[in-house]
Amino acid sequence: MSRFIQKREKSHGLPPGTLKHIGDKKSERAGLTLIDYDENNIVEKEIETIDKCALCKDKDTVTWLNIDGLHQEDVIERAGVIFDFHSLLLEDVLNTDQRPKMEEYDNYIFIIIKMLYYDENTGLIRIEQVSIVFGPNYVVTFQEIKGDVFNAVRERIRNGKGRIRKLGSDYLAYALVDAVVDHYFIILEKIGDKIEELEQALVDNPTQETSRSIHSLKREMIFLRKSIWPLREVISGLERTESPIIKKDTLLFLRDVYDHTIQIIDTVETYRDMVSGMLDTYLSSISNRMNEVMKVLTIIATIFIPLTFIAGVYGMNFRYMPELQWKLSYPIVLLVMIFIGITMIIYFKRKKWL
Amino acid sequence: MSRFIQKREKSHGLPPGTLKHIGDKKSERAGLTLIDYDENNIVEKEIETIDKCALCKDKDTVTWLNIDGLHQEDVIERAGVIFDFHSLLLEDVLNTDQRPKMEEYDNYIFIIIKMLYYDENTGLIRIEQVSIVFGPNYVVTFQEIKGDVFNAVRERIRNGKGRIRKLGSDYLAYALVDAVVDHYFIILEKIGDKIEELEQALVDNPTQETSRSIHSLKREMIFLRKSIWPLREVISGLERTESPIIKKDTLLFLRDVYDHTIQIIDTVETYRDMVSGMLDTYLSSISNRMNEVMKVLTIIATIFIPLTFIAGVYGMNFRYMPELQWKLSYPIVLLVMIFIGITMIIYFKRKKWL
Amino acid sequence: MSRFIQKREKSHGLPPGTLKHIGDKKSERAGLTLIDYDENNIVEKEIETIDKCALCKDKDTVTWLNIDGLHQEDVIERAGVIFDFHSLLLEDVLNTDQRPKMEEYDNYIFIIIKMLYYDENTGLIRIEQVSIVFGPNYVVTFQEIKGDVFNAVRERIRNGKGRIRKLGSDYLAYALVDAVVDHYFIILEKIGDKIEELEQALVDNPTQETSRSIHSLKREMIFLRKSIWPLREVISGLERTESPIIKKDTLLFLRDVYDHTIQIIDTVETYRDMVSGMLDTYLSSISNRMNEVMKVLTIIATIFIPLTFIAGVYGMNFRYMPELQWKLSYPIVLLVMIFIGITMIIYFKRKKWL
Amino acid sequence: MSRFIQKREKSHGLPPGTLKHIGDKKSERAGLTLIDYDENNIVEKEIETIDKCALCKDKDTVTWLNIDGLHQEDVIERAGVIFDFHSLLLEDVLNTDQRPKMEEYDNYIFIIIKMLYYDENTGLIRIEQVSIVFGPNYVVTFQEIKGDVFNAVRERIRNGKGRIRKLGSDYLAYALVDAVVDHYFIILEKIGDKIEELEQALVDNPTQETSRSIHSLKREMIFLRKSIWPLREVISGLERTESPIIKKDTLLFLRDVYDHTIQIIDTVETYRDMVSGMLDTYLSSISNRMNEVMKVLTIIATIFIPLTFIAGVYGMNFRYMPELQWKLSYPIVLLVMIFIGITMIIYFKRKKWL
Amino acid sequence: MSRFIQKREKSHGLPPGTLKHIGDKKSERAGLTLIDYDENNIVEKEIETIDKCALCKDKDTVTWLNIDGLHQEDVIERAGVIFDFHSLLLEDVLNTDQRPKMEEYDNYIFIIIKMLYYDENTGLIRIEQVSIVFGPNYVVTFQEIKGDVFNAVRERIRNGKGRIRKLGSDYLAYALVDAVVDHYFIILEKIGDKIEELEQALVDNPTQETSRSIHSLKREMIFLRKSIWPLREVISGLERTESPIIKKDTLLFLRDVYDHTIQIIDTVETYRDMVSGMLDTYLSSISNRMNEVMKVLTIIATIFIPLTFIAGVYGMNFRYMPELQWKLSYPIVLLVMIFIGITMIIYFKRKKWL
Repeated sequence: MSRFIQKREKSHGLPPGTLKHIGDKKSERAGLTLIDYDENNIVEKEIETIDKCALCKDKDTVTWLNIDGLHQEDVIERAGVIFDFHSLLLEDVLNTDQRPKMEEYDNYIFIIIKMLYYDENTGLIRIEQVSIVFGPNYVVTFQEIKGDVFNAVRERIRNGKGRIRKLGSDYLAYALVDAVVDHYFIILEKIGDKIEELEQALVDNPTQETSRSIHSLKREMIFLRKSIWPLREVISGLERTESPIIKKDTLLFLRDVYDHTIQIIDTVETYRDMVSGMLDTYLSSISNRMNEVMKVLTIIATIFIPLTFIAGVYGMNFRYMPELQWKLSYPIVLLVMIFIGITMIIYFKRKKWL
Repeated sequence: MSRFIQKREKSHGLPPGTLKHIGDKKSERAGLTLIDYDENNIVEKEIETIDKCALCKDKDTVTWLNIDGLHQEDVIERAGVIFDFHSLLLEDVLNTDQRPKMEEYDNYIFIIIKMLYYDENTGLIRIEQVSIVFGPNYVVTFQEIKGDVFNAVRERIRNGKGRIRKLGSDYLAYALVDAVVDHYFIILEKIGDKIEELEQALVDNPTQETSRSIHSLKREMIFLRKSIWPLREVISGLERTESPIIKKDTLLFLRDVYDHTIQIIDTVETYRDMVSGMLDTYLSSISNRMNEVMKVLTIIATIFIPLTFIAGVYGMNFRYMPELQWKLSYPIVLLVMIFIGITMIIYFKRKKWL
Repeated sequence: MSRFIQKREKSHGLPPGTLKHIGDKKSERAGLTLIDYDENNIVEKEIETIDKCALCKDKDTVTWLNIDGLHQEDVIERAGVIFDFHSLLLEDVLNTDQRPKMEEYDNYIFIIIKMLYYDENTGLIRIEQVSIVFGPNYVVTFQEIKGDVFNAVRERIRNGKGRIRKLGSDYLAYALVDAVVDHYFIILEKIGDKIEELEQALVDNPTQETSRSIHSLKREMIFLRKSIWPLREVISGLERTESPIIKKDTLLFLRDVYDHTIQIIDTVETYRDMVSGMLDTYLSSISNRMNEVMKVLTIIATIFIPLTFIAGVYGMNFRYMPELQWKLSYPIVLLVMIFIGITMIIYFKRKKWL
Repeated sequence: MSRFIQKREKSHGLPPGTLKHIGDKKSERAGLTLIDYDENNIVEKEIETIDKCALCKDKDTVTWLNIDGLHQEDVIERAGVIFDFHSLLLEDVLNTDQRPKMEEYDNYIFIIIKMLYYDENTGLIRIEQVSIVFGPNYVVTFQEIKGDVFNAVRERIRNGKGRIRKLGSDYLAYALVDAVVDHYFIILEKIGDKIEELEQALVDNPTQETSRSIHSLKREMIFLRKSIWPLREVISGLERTESPIIKKDTLLFLRDVYDHTIQIIDTVETYRDMVSGMLDTYLSSISNRMNEVMKVLTIIATIFIPLTFIAGVYGMNFRYMPELQWKLSYPIVLLVMIFIGITMIIYFKRKKWL
Repeated sequence: MSRFIQKREKSHGLPPGTLKHIGDKKSERAGLTLIDYDENNIVEKEIETIDKCALCKDKDTVTWLNIDGLHQEDVIERAGVIFDFHSLLLEDVLNTDQRPKMEEYDNYIFIIIKMLYYDENTGLIRIEQVSIVFGPNYVVTFQEIKGDVFNAVRERIRNGKGRIRKLGSDYLAYALVDAVVDHYFIILEKIGDKIEELEQALVDNPTQETSRSIHSLKREMIFLRKSIWPLREVISGLERTESPIIKKDTLLFLRDVYDHTIQIIDTVETYRDMVSGMLDTYLSSISNRMNEVMKVLTIIATIFIPLTFIAGVYGMNFRYMPELQWKLSYPIVLLVMIFIGITMIIYFKRKKWL
């Protein structure tokens, strides 16, 4: 549950813009990685303190500063000073319970998106907040923990292949968003596999375990939806912005990532429909099976009850029961019983109860 | 139920603009608190009568007049005269059954929002109406009872830290709205805890008590939703207004509180989905368990009914039943019975009914 | 049912604009009441024939002509001639099955709204159509029966208190709409009480009667909703109109009544949600109780069936049943039976079936 | 089912604009009726071939050509040539599976609407497509079969009463649409009666037949809705068009028919809600009754099972059962049995199970 | 399930615009067909390599290049070079998991739509992605496998009948889209037949098989909906575009295909409603039948249980049971039993339980 809303009692009453990390402390030490490149050169290094990047902002090359770990508020604050970020922006970076959003400031654009990881063991989706701020020639990214989702982008920068080295900071920001969105497809595939598996289980042998899995999947879908829906606005916000930071060349790529987002949302909605349908299937199949069982059992009982009654009648101890003395009465009664039993079975079969 | 709509029969037929307090009389005496500040100075005092504030409106400093308790209509009316408020505005302030709204008048802006308190004992949400009117250099707030939600704002004014002393009445109004909205997160956390607790109960041992709690939670969600949804319009109304009372500096902060509102609405909707899902889970788990019980019981009965029939047959008193005379017939019948019982158990197990 | 759509077969095939009263004949004789006022003077009289009002339209004073009863088509038609109303307007007035609407004509504005009455005995909502036409200095109202909802407005005109005597026909029209809308709150309170009552019944002892009441309440909500929803458009139409008949002073009051309408719609929606929730609660509580009953009964049967079987075994008449001859076999069998019974009870208790 | 979509396999692969009648052949011979009128004169005749109308289009009088029967593609095609209709329009006329729509061409306006008939015997709604094309001074209508819905309009033209002879082709087109829409009210009344009847049946004695009727009514509602919803766009399209064919005088009448459409849609939605509600009522009443039956039956069984056990105990043949010899044991056992039975009944009554 | 989202893990981390076929390899060799026509001439040929079409783009005739099979990335890439397509476009063509969409580039328009095939054996809908790129005088189509849906269009080009030879590449593109959309009607007819069949089965003899078919149909509807809904935007995008590639003459035809799309969407929604309704009908009919069975069986048991009790009483072995000695007690007891049985049957009948 705590995944849905972070405890923030500690921060109530603080003035807006106060820097206070809200979220679990997930990483020991803030890691600072700096990549500085233009079409021909690239410098990549881990730096000790944020002040080593004091002049990054105004270089002509594209500078990408990545900060892993949000619990050291002083690092974040210092980054804010160096890059001249608004205090509300820094507050949002630190509060990992933000809704994905895109905000345009005078000299930079601020994006919050959610990185999702699917935990195979628990079947739960883990979430990390990724904040991206980019100005004319720099990109600053904030991650809760050191993740590997940006590695492919780093690799592309290093290799100098593709457009990434030729285009500016807006393309880099796009590439980072695209990497995150691409990762969503993996989550969706995992969930798709899970759905397929559960559908098979539904056909083969639906157990209470199956039902529990479906319910839990449904909850994950609610969770997923909450994280992914706002993404649409984020990216269409980027597309529609008139900020000079985003150049015309990048717009086509943004349209592409927007298409992916719509496709992801579509798939999430389709999955939701399917999971709901599976719940219905489960319930009706369980109820069918239960009915089948009860019917057969009840029929067995119903057949024997009249027979037991007949046996009971001839078990009475009246002195004057002429049948008791007859030689043939026992076999006759047995035959009558068999006849009644068979008649009932035939009747039930004809009524399609058996 | 009465929380959903106030009795207002007493006021029917009164001309619009008549001042009549609609709501419970929650506080004995209207309390009047006045804070008057600019960047350098601050005066804070409790005043006896509203007339002590007769000139507040036209001072250059920012004046914040807070009125606790709405049942003394004359105080409200007098405030209306001093600050030159429209009579419909005063009527709305007194009618505590208002929908949250924002209205722009010529010289001031009028906001009604709802303060929510979660009563841990009953699990019910209590609601107080907060009305805020602010003009170029004054803010008047009306509360039903003396609450503590504005204390943090007061503290910040006293300390003179942050922006609050430097910016005008619009920032103060924003700060008050922000304090209320921030408080919603606490309610949501409480409800989140409750949901977590109930989910655990659902897994461990769902009782009728659990179901009752879920239903009651669902009702609270309806209630919460009704109070929170209109907030979105209120704040986006503040953002979009062209009134000169709201200055450009404050807009960024309004965007921030708007984000919070969207996040709250999102969470409420997510909670609603989860509570609905929990009800389904409850019903299907109850029905599963019930089915399990009935099945086992029915199977026990089904096994014994044919056996009882056999016993009944040999309890018949026919004179000519050759088996009765045989030496081995009793153990044979017993063995037959055991055989039938075991066969049925095996059959049921194979059919997965047991 | 007939409340949802009026039989109008009689009118099919008539050309549009033909005057034909569609609806029940609810009042014997059309009553005509005339109030003519300005800030200083007021004349109020019942008039015999509509022609007495032939010059009303062009006086400088505000004239309010109220017509009770719609079955005398000639009266309506004559009113149409005197006030120069479009024939489609008159057709709409006579057809009491109209949807609430607002139509702007060149020289007057036409409003249809629904007056609702809650019949305490049947729990049904009764509906009357109220048509209001107002021009620069006159208001004509048409009611199906002589109602008392406008009395408060009349009283205010007579007293000359408030704004009503100072402002024009548009304010009078507003006041009439406001009176009707205010009356809706009473209906909502009644329904709120009913909901509260039913919720209590649900907790105490839900019977089939409760279920029937909830279903009937649900139907009334559908009905209510159909009558109230269009009101929103009516009033926002009045607010947005550019007709010179509505003066700027009245706009603020229209905003107020619009707020009330939104609040009413909100409450209706909330009630709908609650009634749906109550149905769910009812069904699950009934099913819970039923399950409880069945479980206990089945358990009783299940305990006795094996015992009866044992008794049956020793009721068999085999000659060679050694146990029958033993002295202690009877008490032993009894003890075995008691043991089996207690074991089963303990087992069921441990399984939480009891 | 075939009512929902026409088989059109025969036409796949044909180029667009190919004339091919899609739908059942409902009438033997295309009937051509021509009415030609202005304010003073009227000529009405059945014509043999469409060529007799070759000059209709350019006369000053209003010409109304009605074509019954769509299977003679050559007639339709010839009409297309004479009136200079676009081939896509003719294709739409012939394909009776069109969605209601309004299309504006350069010199004429094209409307497709659905005529509905309620078949009292089957309870099904039958549908006929009506296409109306009207230009500056002509109206061409295409009907699948000779219907009687336009008779009233014809009568009004003949009588020369009302506006119809004075106004142009746009008013005639309006009058035809109005006739169709007016007819919908009859369908709604019939359905309303059906609902009322079923509601009564639900209260009196709900049988499986009732459930089947409700389900079938629900399906008819889906069907109705599909035919009526698009009408709204059709008529608002007519209102908003800037084509000079529609004159200002007619606009007011279109607003009137638009209101009727909204009212019909409203009623359909209300009916849908009511039918859904009835299904719920049916299910819960059936389940209630079933529960009642099962409970009583189970209680009867539960009372007798322990008693039968006691009888079984004393039916055992142990030699040493002291009670068997006692004089009073039989009456005592009987009394014990009666006591147990009564106790159980009282217990069940107190528990409100009986 | 895999139909809902393609595995694309292999492509994660690749820079955007990298050509990688995502989807099943459905065809062995890419087939290239070229049709080149103007009003008077037509050349149609299969070409070996894409380079044979190097000058196609700049001819005055309309050139239609159709490529079957997407797994040979080099062919696609080469086509991209020749026609100067954007790399993102080619990436979309290769990724067969795209959502239908329409994108406008500077010199061409790009459409992705889905071709649907209904597999009669499995009842599943198979999907193929069709990409269409068209510029001023060429159309390039990409299909996953060699399909026959475009044959009719080819035939029309060959015959030179209709408009197709006279109009440009935009009309050809329209004709191709129209061919695909027309094919959807066949799918809908198949599904309509299936629904009809299942409805009949529901009335005749609903089995678990029926339920499974309905559930599977419901899933296919989700699937269908996902493929068809976006089509609406695609075609309205084509209508609204201001690109000079689409000429005014084609717009009317686009409006026609747009109407078809709306009709298809309408029908899909109607089918969804009907399938949901069928599930309800199924569940309630199953539950009705089950209840009927259980009721009859329970009644049989209930009738015999008291009778068996009576027999049990007189089977007790008490020495002093005076009735046992009476001559008439046996027939009396039998009569009493018959009387009780008949009374119960009458009672149950009167209560309408039988």
